[in-house]
Amino acid sequence: MDKKIGLLIVGVNGAIASTAIAGVEAIKRNLAKPTGLLTETEAVAGVDLVKLSNIKFGGWDIVQEPHFQCLKKHGILEESLITKLEKEPYDIDFFSAPRTGITNHIMNIDSTMHIDDIMIPVKDAVRQIIENINEFKNKYNLTGCVVVNLSSTEPRKENLEFLNTIELFEDAVNKNNPDISSGMIYAYASIKAHAPFINFTPSATVDIPALKQLAEKERVAVAGNDGKTGQTLYKTVIAPMLKWRNLKLLGWYSTNILGNNDGRVLEDPNHKKTKIMSKTKVLDNILGYDDFYHRVEINYYPPRGDAKEAWDTIDFQGWLGTNMSMKINWIGEDSILAAPLVIDIMRLLWAAYERGAYGVVRELAEYFKDPIDCKDHDFSNQILLLQKFIEILKDNN
Amino acid sequence: MDKKIGLLIVGVNGAIASTAIAGVEAIKRNLAKPTGLLTETEAVAGVDLVKLSNIKFGGWDIVQEPHFQCLKKHGILEESLITKLEKEPYDIDFFSAPRTGITNHIMNIDSTMHIDDIMIPVKDAVRQIIENINEFKNKYNLTGCVVVNLSSTEPRKENLEFLNTIELFEDAVNKNNPDISSGMIYAYASIKAHAPFINFTPSATVDIPALKQLAEKERVAVAGNDGKTGQTLYKTVIAPMLKWRNLKLLGWYSTNILGNNDGRVLEDPNHKKTKIMSKTKVLDNILGYDDFYHRVEINYYPPRGDAKEAWDTIDFQGWLGTNMSMKINWIGEDSILAAPLVIDIMRLLWAAYERGAYGVVRELAEYFKDPIDCKDHDFSNQILLLQKFIEILKDNN
Amino acid sequence: MDKKIGLLIVGVNGAIASTAIAGVEAIKRNLAKPTGLLTETEAVAGVDLVKLSNIKFGGWDIVQEPHFQCLKKHGILEESLITKLEKEPYDIDFFSAPRTGITNHIMNIDSTMHIDDIMIPVKDAVRQIIENINEFKNKYNLTGCVVVNLSSTEPRKENLEFLNTIELFEDAVNKNNPDISSGMIYAYASIKAHAPFINFTPSATVDIPALKQLAEKERVAVAGNDGKTGQTLYKTVIAPMLKWRNLKLLGWYSTNILGNNDGRVLEDPNHKKTKIMSKTKVLDNILGYDDFYHRVEINYYPPRGDAKEAWDTIDFQGWLGTNMSMKINWIGEDSILAAPLVIDIMRLLWAAYERGAYGVVRELAEYFKDPIDCKDHDFSNQILLLQKFIEILKDNN
Amino acid sequence: MDKKIGLLIVGVNGAIASTAIAGVEAIKRNLAKPTGLLTETEAVAGVDLVKLSNIKFGGWDIVQEPHFQCLKKHGILEESLITKLEKEPYDIDFFSAPRTGITNHIMNIDSTMHIDDIMIPVKDAVRQIIENINEFKNKYNLTGCVVVNLSSTEPRKENLEFLNTIELFEDAVNKNNPDISSGMIYAYASIKAHAPFINFTPSATVDIPALKQLAEKERVAVAGNDGKTGQTLYKTVIAPMLKWRNLKLLGWYSTNILGNNDGRVLEDPNHKKTKIMSKTKVLDNILGYDDFYHRVEINYYPPRGDAKEAWDTIDFQGWLGTNMSMKINWIGEDSILAAPLVIDIMRLLWAAYERGAYGVVRELAEYFKDPIDCKDHDFSNQILLLQKFIEILKDNN
Repeated sequence: MDKKIGLLIVGVNGAIASTAIAGVEAIKRNLAKPTGLLTETEAVAGVDLVKLSNIKFGGWDIVQEPHFQCLKKHGILEESLITKLEKEPYDIDFFSAPRTGITNHIMNIDSTMHIDDIMIPVKDAVRQIIENINEFKNKYNLTGCVVVNLSSTEPRKENLEFLNTIELFEDAVNKNNPDISSGMIYAYASIKAHAPFINFTPSATVDIPALKQLAEKERVAVAGNDGKTGQTLYKTVIAPMLKWRNLKLLGWYSTNILGNNDGRVLEDPNHKKTKIMSKTKVLDNILGYDDFYHRVEINYYPPRGDAKEAWDTIDFQGWLGTNMSMKINWIGEDSILAAPLVIDIMRLLWAAYERGAYGVVRELAEYFKDPIDCKDHDFSNQILLLQKFIEILKDNN
Repeated sequence: MDKKIGLLIVGVNGAIASTAIAGVEAIKRNLAKPTGLLTETEAVAGVDLVKLSNIKFGGWDIVQEPHFQCLKKHGILEESLITKLEKEPYDIDFFSAPRTGITNHIMNIDSTMHIDDIMIPVKDAVRQIIENINEFKNKYNLTGCVVVNLSSTEPRKENLEFLNTIELFEDAVNKNNPDISSGMIYAYASIKAHAPFINFTPSATVDIPALKQLAEKERVAVAGNDGKTGQTLYKTVIAPMLKWRNLKLLGWYSTNILGNNDGRVLEDPNHKKTKIMSKTKVLDNILGYDDFYHRVEINYYPPRGDAKEAWDTIDFQGWLGTNMSMKINWIGEDSILAAPLVIDIMRLLWAAYERGAYGVVRELAEYFKDPIDCKDHDFSNQILLLQKFIEILKDNN
Repeated sequence: MDKKIGLLIVGVNGAIASTAIAGVEAIKRNLAKPTGLLTETEAVAGVDLVKLSNIKFGGWDIVQEPHFQCLKKHGILEESLITKLEKEPYDIDFFSAPRTGITNHIMNIDSTMHIDDIMIPVKDAVRQIIENINEFKNKYNLTGCVVVNLSSTEPRKENLEFLNTIELFEDAVNKNNPDISSGMIYAYASIKAHAPFINFTPSATVDIPALKQLAEKERVAVAGNDGKTGQTLYKTVIAPMLKWRNLKLLGWYSTNILGNNDGRVLEDPNHKKTKIMSKTKVLDNILGYDDFYHRVEINYYPPRGDAKEAWDTIDFQGWLGTNMSMKINWIGEDSILAAPLVIDIMRLLWAAYERGAYGVVRELAEYFKDPIDCKDHDFSNQILLLQKFIEILKDNN
Repeated sequence: MDKKIGLLIVGVNGAIASTAIAGVEAIKRNLAKPTGLLTETEAVAGVDLVKLSNIKFGGWDIVQEPHFQCLKKHGILEESLITKLEKEPYDIDFFSAPRTGITNHIMNIDSTMHIDDIMIPVKDAVRQIIENINEFKNKYNLTGCVVVNLSSTEPRKENLEFLNTIELFEDAVNKNNPDISSGMIYAYASIKAHAPFINFTPSATVDIPALKQLAEKERVAVAGNDGKTGQTLYKTVIAPMLKWRNLKLLGWYSTNILGNNDGRVLEDPNHKKTKIMSKTKVLDNILGYDDFYHRVEINYYPPRGDAKEAWDTIDFQGWLGTNMSMKINWIGEDSILAAPLVIDIMRLLWAAYERGAYGVVRELAEYFKDPIDCKDHDFSNQILLLQKFIEILKDNN
C-alpha cells in the first residue's frame, strides 16, 4: 500500500497555504493540470515520491477561519473553481497556534483578527506542537509528517548568544526567553517530533546553529530559507549570463509592489529588513565581486492584490566601457508561484529523509532565495545539483 | 617566442569589425579594460591562448575606406578614444572583396558605395581569397590565420542540391553556379587554405553539408552560426528557468529595433527571413514543446543607431492555470556586444584547432544563436560544455 | 414621454458591439457602474441626452449567432456577469448582412462561419438596409436611429473617381461597381434613411467626398474615423507635452499585439495598411514638423486575446542636443475601451442631430484616431472643442 | 538699446545652474540650438522678451568653485562642448552664500566641501543679499534682476506661526529665529530688493503667507513651487486623459532613481518628505476624487548619475469594472530638462513684472509641480492659461 504523508503548515489559513491545498485538491479531481509542479514532470520520472492523493493537510494559524472562507477572502482562485471544490469538500486539520506573546506585533496589523489573550510559556508551546504532530500522524495513520513555515516574516535580532548551541537554546526554551521567535518554536518542536522542517520564509528557524546541530543530532532533514518565487528567481539566471560574458554589473535597482498581507507586514521596517537582507546577498555570490550598487525596495500597493509586480533596471558595462542596460517588469502572482514550490519541496525533502538524509538538504538550494549553507546562487549550478539529487533519489528507491 | 595569429574578417570595414579591432588596440595601449572578453578572465586561466598583442588584423570589404574613417562613420566609439588611437596608428591589411555578381542586392542599399563593376567567376574569387590568406600569413610570418564572416546577412535558398556533397559543390564552383553565395565562397576558400572559419552571421556557410564534410576532410576547425549578442542570449537563460519551474509558456513576442546598417539590410524581407529563422528555433529546443506562439519582429529604426533595443513580452501559465507575464526591455549596443565575442571565439577556436580539433567545434555553441549540429540551446548547459572544453584545452597546453 | 432611439450596429455580433450592449444592460440592472462613459458624468450635466434605458439595440452581421453565445465566445465579460444577464434576457434585432461579394476576403478568415452564398447587387443591398432601418424604427416606435460601423477594417483603394461626387457614386451603385465597399453601402443607406452614421473603423465610409456631400444635402449628422481607444489616445496627450516643452521628437516606435479577430484581420497586409495609415498622421499634425521617424507595427498575438498590449519607445532631444527617451507599455482591453465610446458618441451625435447639426460633426474629433476634416489632433484642444460643444448642446435643450 | 536683465541663482555652482548658464552661452556662440526653450519658438512670437544675449548671470553658493570645474564635475555636458566654451570664457559673478547655521544639515552631506565656519545673524544675511543684488545691478547697468532658487530641497516645519504675517516674519528675522530657512532669507531679501523671485524647489519660500503678502505689498512678481521636469509633467497629461474617458484610477505607483547630488540629499527622510509632498497632490486635483492609492518613491541610485529614471505603473478601471494598466519608463536627464525651464520662467516672469504684474504669477503654473495658489494641475488647462498670458504680454509690449 502506498505511504501517506502529512503536511502541517504554520499559517495554514494564509494565502500560499490555502492556494497550495486547494490546488492539490483541484488536481486530484481533474479540475486543473499540475502546471507549476516540477514533481509531476518527466524530470523526476522514476523517483518514488508520495502521491499527490496521499498528502494529508493540516496546520496551525493564529485565527481560525474555515478553509473555503479563506480562499474567498484571499481572492486568488477563481470563484468558479472554489464553487466546484466546495461541492465535494475536504478536511484540513486545524490546530490553534500556541501564543507565547512574541507574535503580538504581527497580530496587531489586522483589526479583524479576534484572538483570545491567553499566553503560554515557550516550553508549553513546544509541547503542544509536538502533541499536535503526533496526534495528526496517529489519527490518519501517516508514515510521517513534514512541517512547513509559511507564516509572516519575523524581525531578526542580531547577536543572540543562545542561538549558538543546543544546550543554550534549550536552556532559553525552559527560561521562556522572549527572544525566542515563533518560527524557532515550530522548528524546534518539529525536529524533536522527527518531522522534516521547511522554512519557506526568511525568518530565523533552521538556519540558526543550535537548530542545525539539533537536526543533525536527531537525524531530521530540514531545508530553507525563503522560497524563491519571482525577482530573485530571475536574478539567479540573469547574473550568471552577465558573468559569462564578462559584462560588468554597475547597478541593479529592484522594486517590488504587492498588495497582499505579506506586503502589509513588510511595510513595517523591521520585517522588511529581514526580507531585504535575504534578497541582496545573491548577486555578489554569483558575480564574485561587489563593487556595484544593489538596491531592493518592497512597497505595499493595495491595487495589486496578490499579484506581485516587480521592476528592475540592470546597468552593466561592456566593451570599451560602454554602458548598457536591461529592464525587467515581472507581473506574477505571489501565492500562485509559491504554492507548487511548497508541494515540490515537501515531496523531495520527504524522499530524501526516508532515504536517510538529515541536517540541511543543500541539494534543494534552487528553491530558496537564501539557501542555508550554500554560497552558490547560480541557477544553472543549483539546477545541476538538483538533477544529481534526483538521480540519487531514483537510485535509492 | 609567442605565436602570432592572423584574423581575417569578411566585412572588415563594418561596425563590428572596426569596433573589435579598435578595442583590441585600445586594450593593448591601456586605453581600455578588456570588459566583455571572457578570454581575459579567470575562467580561462591556465589556457595557452594567443595573446591579444599577437593578433594581426586584416580582411576584405566591398568598399575601401580607411579604418579611422570607418570608426567615425559608425559612431560607436567615443570621439576622444578615436583621437587617442589615431595618435599611434596601426595597420590593417585590406583586400578588395572579389565580386561574383551575387552580392549585388546588398550593395544597392547604400548609394554612397561606389563599386567598380568588374565581376569575376566564382573559381577566380576562391583562388583570390586563398592567395590573400597565404600572402597575409607569409607577410607577417604568422603561425596561422582564422577567417570570420561579419558581412551582412544573405538570403538563403532552399533545396539546393549542390550543397549536399563536396563533389557537387566543387562542380558548382567550377560552373559558376549563381546560387553560390558570397559567404559560401569565403568559407570554401578558408577551409581550402586551412584557416579555421567562424560564421558570425546567419548566412549559409559552414553549416551546409558540403562544407562540413570538407572541414572534416581537410581537418579544419569551424564554428557558427550567428553570434548571440542580445535577445537570444537572455532567451536562453529565461526559457530554462520556466522549464525548471514547470511554468507553461503560452507566447513570447519579441520585437527588435535597430538603426545601423544591419537594420537597414534586414528591412529587406528576404534577408530578414534568414535572420528570424535563426532566432526562432531556440525556445522549442529548450522547452521540449512547441504549442506556444513565438513571434520575432525586427524593425529598422534610425534614431536608435547602433544601439539595438529589444522588447519582449513573455506569457506563461502557472498553478491552477493562472496567467502571468514578464516583460524585458533590452537597451544594448549591437557592435559593442558582438566585438569581444569575435575575439573570444577566434582565440578559443584557434586553441582547439592547434590541439587537433577539426570539423564543427560544438563546444562553442554558447556563442551562437543557432549553433550548428547542436540541439541544446539551454545557456547553462552550453556554459557547462564550454567549461569542460576550457578544461580540455588547459590539459592539452 | 422620453424619446427612444435605436442603435443599429454593423457587426452586431462582434466583440465591441456585444460588449457595449451587454454593458448597457448590466448598468440598467445595477450589475455594473457606468465607468468609462463620459455621458454619465458631471461633464455632461444638464444636457438632454437619450437615457441609457431608452436605447434600443439591433444590427447586421454576416453570421447569425445568439447574443449570449457571442458574449461567451469573445471571452471578454466574466462568466458570472453573463450568467446574471441571461436570467433576464433582452432582445437584439438581428438583420442578415446583405452580401454583394465584396466582403468575401473577410469571411474567409474564419472557417467556422457558414454563409449562404447568395450574393445580391449593391442597389438591392442598399434597399434592404434602408428597409431594415425603417422596419426597426416602426417596430419600436423610435424617434430615430443611429447606425454605427463596427465591422472589420476593409482595404482602401486609391484614386477611385466615383467617390468624388454624389452623382458618380450613385451611378456606381446602380452599375454594381465592385469597388464599392461594404462600409460605403451601409453609410450610403443610412444617410438615405436619415439615420446619423458613425464610422468607428478606419474603412472608407463618410469621409469620401460623395458621402460627405450627401450627408450635407440630406442634412444628416455623421462622425468618424476610427475610434481612439489606446495607443493613439496617449499619443495625443504625450505629443503636445513634447511640443510645449520644445523637446524635439526624433522617433516614435509603436508596436501593438492583439489576439482578437481584429488582430487576425489586420495580419492581412492590405487591411493593416488601412489601419496603420489611420494611425500615423497624428504626430505630424500636433508637432508641426515631420522630420522624425514614426513607425507603427500591429501584430497578431493570440495569447493576448482581446487584451491589446502596446509598447512605445519615444526618442526626443532636449537642451544642448541631449537625447532622452520615454517608454510606454499599455495593457488595455480593446473592446472594453471601445464599448463605452460607441455609446458616448451615439448619444452626443444624436443630441447634435436633433438640435439641427448635419454633415461631419467635427466637435467629436476627440473620439477618433483620424477625425474627418480635422487637422488638430491635440487631445487638450479636442477636449476643449468637446466642452464647448457640450455647452452648446446644453443651451439648446 | 535693448534691456539687460540679471539672473542671480541661489546654488549657482549646482548642476542645473551651470547647465543653464553654459547652455545659453553655447546658443549665443552657435554651438547649440535652443531646443528645450519655449521662449525661442513661434509660441511666443511677438512678445518683447529679454534677449538671450542680454541675460547676465551671477549667484550664490556655499562653496566657491570655478564654473568650468563645476561643469566637468557634474558630468552633464559633453567634454568636447566644455572645451569649446572654455576657449572664449565668460564671467559669472559669484557671491559667497551667507551662513546662518541653518544650512548645516545640507553641508554635511559632502565631505569635500570646505566651509569656513563664520556664521552670521539672519538680518545680516538679508542685508548682504540685498547688497549683492544692488551691486550686481549697478556693476552691469542692468534694468533689473531676477533671483531663482536652485539650491537643495530643505525640510519644511509645520505650524510655524511667524510665517503668517509680514510683521511676525520680520520680527523673527530680527530675533534670528532658527526656524527661518535659507530659502526664506533669499526670498525675503529679493522681494525687499525688488527682484522677482522664482522658487524652482519645493522648499518653503514665496508660498508662505508672510512673503506672499510682502510680494503684493512691494509689488514684486514671484513664481513657484518646484520645477516640473519629468514624472509630474507626464502625470499632468495622463491624468486628464483618464478623467475625460471616465476611466477610474485605482492606483499610481511611481518610483524615481537618480544618482546626482539632488538624489543624495533626498536620501535624507526629512528632505524627501518635502519633495514627495510636493509631488502627490497633483492627481487628486485633476481627477476630482482621491479614493485611489498614490505612492511616490525616490531612491538614490549612483549608476544613474544625473539621468533621472522613473517608472510608473498606473492601474485603472474601465467598462464593467475591468482592470487595465499603463506603465511608463522615463529616461530623462534631470538638469537638461530643468535648465531651459529656468530661462523660460525667468524671461516670462520678467516680462510680466515689467508690464505691471506682482504677487504670485499664477499664469506660470504649468512650469511647477506644486503651483502656488493654483488648484488646477491639468496640463492642458495650464497651457491654455499660459497661451492667454502670452497673448496679454504681446498686447502689452
